[in-house]
Amino acid sequence: MATDASGEPAETADAYAELVERFERINGVQGAAGVLGWDQQVMMPEGGTPARSKQLSVLSSLSHELLTDDRTAELLDEVESLDLDEGQTAQLREMRREFERADAVPTELVEEISETSTEALGAWEQARAEDDFDQFAPYLETLVELKREYAEHIDPDRDAYEVLFEDYEPCLSLERAEEILETLKQTLVPMIDEIRTSDADVTTDAFDGAFPEDAQEDLSRDVLSTLGYDWDRGRLDPSTHPFTSGNVYDCRVTTRYDESDPLGGLMATVHEFGHAFYNLGLPEEQFGTPLGESRDLSVHESQSRLWENHVGRSPAFWELVTPKFAERFDTDATAREAYESANQVYEDNLIRVEADELTYHLHIVIRFEIERALISGELDVEDVPEVWNDKYEEYLGIRPETDANGCLQDIHWSHGNFGYFPTYSLGSVMASQLFNAAEDDIGNIYGTVRDGDFEALQTWLRENVHEHGSRYETNDLVREATGEDFTADYFVDYVTTKYGDLYDLEESV
Amino acid sequence: MATDASGEPAETADAYAELVERFERINGVQGAAGVLGWDQQVMMPEGGTPARSKQLSVLSSLSHELLTDDRTAELLDEVESLDLDEGQTAQLREMRREFERADAVPTELVEEISETSTEALGAWEQARAEDDFDQFAPYLETLVELKREYAEHIDPDRDAYEVLFEDYEPCLSLERAEEILETLKQTLVPMIDEIRTSDADVTTDAFDGAFPEDAQEDLSRDVLSTLGYDWDRGRLDPSTHPFTSGNVYDCRVTTRYDESDPLGGLMATVHEFGHAFYNLGLPEEQFGTPLGESRDLSVHESQSRLWENHVGRSPAFWELVTPKFAERFDTDATAREAYESANQVYEDNLIRVEADELTYHLHIVIRFEIERALISGELDVEDVPEVWNDKYEEYLGIRPETDANGCLQDIHWSHGNFGYFPTYSLGSVMASQLFNAAEDDIGNIYGTVRDGDFEALQTWLRENVHEHGSRYETNDLVREATGEDFTADYFVDYVTTKYGDLYDLEESV
Repeated sequence: MATDASGEPAETADAYAELVERFERINGVQGAAGVLGWDQQVMMPEGGTPARSKQLSVLSSLSHELLTDDRTAELLDEVESLDLDEGQTAQLREMRREFERADAVPTELVEEISETSTEALGAWEQARAEDDFDQFAPYLETLVELKREYAEHIDPDRDAYEVLFEDYEPCLSLERAEEILETLKQTLVPMIDEIRTSDADVTTDAFDGAFPEDAQEDLSRDVLSTLGYDWDRGRLDPSTHPFTSGNVYDCRVTTRYDESDPLGGLMATVHEFGHAFYNLGLPEEQFGTPLGESRDLSVHESQSRLWENHVGRSPAFWELVTPKFAERFDTDATAREAYESANQVYEDNLIRVEADELTYHLHIVIRFEIERALISGELDVEDVPEVWNDKYEEYLGIRPETDANGCLQDIHWSHGNFGYFPTYSLGSVMASQLFNAAEDDIGNIYGTVRDGDFEALQTWLRENVHEHGSRYETNDLVREATGEDFTADYFVDYVTTKYGDLYDLEESV
Repeated sequence: MATDASGEPAETADAYAELVERFERINGVQGAAGVLGWDQQVMMPEGGTPARSKQLSVLSSLSHELLTDDRTAELLDEVESLDLDEGQTAQLREMRREFERADAVPTELVEEISETSTEALGAWEQARAEDDFDQFAPYLETLVELKREYAEHIDPDRDAYEVLFEDYEPCLSLERAEEILETLKQTLVPMIDEIRTSDADVTTDAFDGAFPEDAQEDLSRDVLSTLGYDWDRGRLDPSTHPFTSGNVYDCRVTTRYDESDPLGGLMATVHEFGHAFYNLGLPEEQFGTPLGESRDLSVHESQSRLWENHVGRSPAFWELVTPKFAERFDTDATAREAYESANQVYEDNLIRVEADELTYHLHIVIRFEIERALISGELDVEDVPEVWNDKYEEYLGIRPETDANGCLQDIHWSHGNFGYFPTYSLGSVMASQLFNAAEDDIGNIYGTVRDGDFEALQTWLRENVHEHGSRYETNDLVREATGEDFTADYFVDYVTTKYGDLYDLEESV
């Protein structure tokens, strides 16, 4: 056996290198699938679906096969017995997790879930269009059963929902997630109730009028440039649902334009910027390996929400942006009026994606409670509409009159994505904690935001979040960045202060 | 062993199905790479190259591995011994050919060629920019040697150039290709010589002026719609080099816009339409299998040239299109003037891609003769510039003053693509033969072209070329469509009549 200078077997390094190369291959296939997905939503002509579906399904099964191949298992075992440095250890942890999850679930079950989801999607679309939950119910029931089975393959001894949650948030405990969601509920239910009866004079009409699409696109480009988007590594296109796609070299954002709602599109642009700015800050030297990937969904959402809420919905941002509106549109709203309109609480809104920064989280809490009860078996599918409506009445003081505006509004369950919703709220909460720490370190961020200077904030996020890739698990990442465990405290402070001021609320909230 | 109702082993059908599925997988990977390639040229931000190169290289090696896997060989052998119908036999012929070529060449050699090409491309770019052939010569020499080696792996007993030619045109004999190119030379050298001294008064300035890019794009879209492009399965974008990419469900074209040259862009659009219209007419039921693919490069080029030359450069087309020019641009050229300008012979032009329909083929003949002599060893790389210049003087009556405008002008040799150039001319020749047969069957195609009615021609091409996919080998396809073997006769008739009329040439040419 050959040895290197240190006397260690040369195959040590070889096995690690082979393992990394294998994961780089998998990443290459998944990256290709990512480009195909972007193209499908942004560029592909309608007729292209049959070919695209086939291409994506081939890439998905190839990547699964490469990941679950016997050779992957052998190499993981071999490398595990070696003396690894800290980065290699983290690399191996991420590889092992990916492998084990993929390996635990039989391919047939994955395919069954995928096929059922395709059927469920069609049924959901029709059920929503016809406001008829019964059409969707049998598919939802099957998906709940299949997902329970899926969780059982991964770990038969643990709570199935906990296992499913880890698909989206593998290294944050469900217990902490639950605590945080419970805090949100305890804080926001009374706060929104008080806002409902507040007689504060909040401007709500700064964005009334007509806002041509071309000028909105131009504004979005201007704002992206101002925030620091690297156009050499990105692009902006319109799509029905805004999203971000790509890697450290090429990360693209999409947004939407509604001529009667310039705020929605602009906030979507700022939100997607946050996602893209994260990916564009990942460590290049780890590109293509698990360590070079972003941390999971809550952290990703923390980046989009930080830019959307803490930057994009701040008074300083509206001082910066109001002149940009005046240049392009027929509007004379002041920065303060724009700020108030951008932060008004829609206390009668039933639709999650149209919700404001406060009520949003109750939409999430309701979904979380319902899907948790569905997976545990405490709640039957047939009872979902009634429970949904009761919870809306209890938490938000409004009751949906149709299921289309109630439990049929979101696409996620038709994909079988149970455990996904919480990451939206967790991301907002994490954004508050990170922003607070950045402000402690930098001081007076809003002073520079007002001037369109984002450099200090960019650098802080690069150094404290992006450059770490997947080196730290979620809570460790938060602790490294902020000095504290992941907590809802800063979010509670943030909304209490902000909305206390806007709506003249009692201090005690 | 299980048997089906006919008493045949059930595994018969199984082996064939498994083989088809395997090739569908390969096609899925290659299709994905096609989308990535399109995106790279049309959409990708500049910085995306490192990630894209990695993705493409992973897809390329996966597709190679799937193709040359032992299981592919086993299945091919197994299926070969079965009783196959005509379609299955053709399917197997195509699969076998693909497999054998890929299997014959060692992966290391393929990679060495690929790496050398990457370096050669850089060297070629610099050599061309600095007009210094010596910088490119060593790379060209290495590529010639590597490609000889490549050919020897495939068949050590045959002429290496013949083997290389089959990479692009696997089922047309080089002998026939040579005869056709020789005929072109014999016909065109004297014809162009006579045109040079012709005192015919051909309009050359119908496209002088300024033609805004937006209006050119609008014109291209209008013409694509008129020709019958299916926008539900395609799209048009600008790119530096026009190209077509896609399959029967989604086939996209690109074109270029030069504000001082509206003709170049429009002809590129019509040319690419021909390529796309072919792919969009392939048999859907064979999608993803070799039989569902287009026949090789000459046939593909026949489709683009048929639309570009026989439709797009006809008097009837200019009667249709001249009003479209007048609507969009500040021009009052008549249809006849536009037709003449679109068909003027540039007898002093040194650049292949700027050549007219006649001189074009002498550019090809020169490259063909030189690359054939390079591969056989009759010509040394160092002598290429002089031989090149001598041939330009002999065939076209002009002598390049620089290598940048001479033997360094084309990218192909830096890719190691020896054997590719002839397919351009073969395509034009085939286009003439096919168009002649279509006219015989339909009668008076130009009468309908004038009215913007292309239905009869579309249907003829669908039924006689596109729908066959790869069922017939090249010459058989031509014979099925026209009743005759592939011949240059119709091309010679076509140019003799057309340019005899334009330039008042003697009948005897």
